[in-house]
Amino acid sequence: MQMTRVKAVVAYDGTNFAGYQSQPSMRTVQSEIDKALVKIHKDKKIHSVASGRTDAGVHANGQVIHFDTPLTLPLDRWQTALNVLLPMDIRIVGVEFIDEKFHARYSATGKTYIYKWSYSEVHSPFERNYSVHLGKWHPDVQRMKEATVHFLGTHDFTSFCSSKTATSNKVRTIRQLTLEEQGDLLIMTIEGDGFLYNMVRTIAGTLLAVGKGWNTPADVKRILESCDRKEAGKTAPSHGLYLDSVTYND
Amino acid sequence: MQMTRVKAVVAYDGTNFAGYQSQPSMRTVQSEIDKALVKIHKDKKIHSVASGRTDAGVHANGQVIHFDTPLTLPLDRWQTALNVLLPMDIRIVGVEFIDEKFHARYSATGKTYIYKWSYSEVHSPFERNYSVHLGKWHPDVQRMKEATVHFLGTHDFTSFCSSKTATSNKVRTIRQLTLEEQGDLLIMTIEGDGFLYNMVRTIAGTLLAVGKGWNTPADVKRILESCDRKEAGKTAPSHGLYLDSVTYND
Repeated sequence: MQMTRVKAVVAYDGTNFAGYQSQPSMRTVQSEIDKALVKIHKDKKIHSVASGRTDAGVHANGQVIHFDTPLTLPLDRWQTALNVLLPMDIRIVGVEFIDEKFHARYSATGKTYIYKWSYSEVHSPFERNYSVHLGKWHPDVQRMKEATVHFLGTHDFTSFCSSKTATSNKVRTIRQLTLEEQGDLLIMTIEGDGFLYNMVRTIAGTLLAVGKGWNTPADVKRILESCDRKEAGKTAPSHGLYLDSVTYND
Repeated sequence: MQMTRVKAVVAYDGTNFAGYQSQPSMRTVQSEIDKALVKIHKDKKIHSVASGRTDAGVHANGQVIHFDTPLTLPLDRWQTALNVLLPMDIRIVGVEFIDEKFHARYSATGKTYIYKWSYSEVHSPFERNYSVHLGKWHPDVQRMKEATVHFLGTHDFTSFCSSKTATSNKVRTIRQLTLEEQGDLLIMTIEGDGFLYNMVRTIAGTLLAVGKGWNTPADVKRILESCDRKEAGKTAPSHGLYLDSVTYND
């Protein structure tokens, strides 16, 4: 049967999901997407493949998936059909037909994540699931910025991933790491060739420890070299984290 | 017993509440606030009084309540104690001690509501509970602005309130009514001396009908004069509505 590969960009509010990946009897992003695909394909099982998982509570502006279909719907109908069937906390924001050599996970050449903290005096009820509240207390953002340089480039990130990480190669390259204040929000943006399990949240937690004065910017270099997860800061909470975009070579 | 009256400004995300007012076995904003007050007062029942109810799904940036307490906590402790006990979708954003002649409902001299529509191509999953999606279609905002003038001033708003409204006096004064585009959002702001049940949402629905070309701006005058709810537009959905602030004469 002639199959067509569809690439889709997906935004989701991670609040009410037990993470991205399908799990028995849990509400996950993948299971909702695959359920919609089954309906479109009249009960034939179609599985989507994502660029990677995200944890419970983690959001996405631009997760990327692909799936193969025997149907011959025009492109705009794919977006409409999926959005009609999906719950409102998952939205397909873009679709394209793509070569079958494209793979949402293996073809990815980079990912960008965003992490948001809020230092509004009272955490807005509308922000409660979308940023991590620091209270009235302002971290030393200049100090945090000084620490970012140590993450840039290629390093062994053993100190910055969950000890449960199965991947043996823990070398990753960080291409960009910025901190920006926008109103009451402090926003970290990080771009790299790939990220280990909990890596962005551990980097966020470690930068915050620097901002709190518990570590110096130079300590980051020492922590990286130690290759010991216990040296790094806490894993920052999931609800401040957004998978912002995934890049591919065209 | 010496009682102290406390005035508090309350923000809430209305999404997960069955409205403001206490109802048996329902999660409401008032029941959560009164539960927190009971805890602070060691199981003594203290009832809060609000400026008015809001419906299920309606949000607030600045609802106002008052309650009387025999306790002598310092002012900042009231805010902290309530916020510790309240769920994260209700936040006390301000407190003050106030004369016992102040009454959150009867002393109010005006209220401001905001209504939000979104015309982003795809409704962001993060916006789904906070604005009403119009889809790709843009209403004629200039036409809607022309219609706003007919609401200004003092009118009988029988056509613009639920037929279930118990209040016999349906005369209200609108002091301000503006429409503003902010990015993908169309925002209506309305200020008046008071509002009947569903009045803001019916005005919003009627303005949108003008923007859609179903009614002319001049029709608004005719609808007001008809004193017939059936003449006005649909009641706009609750999740676009925010009680923004309540004003009092000092």
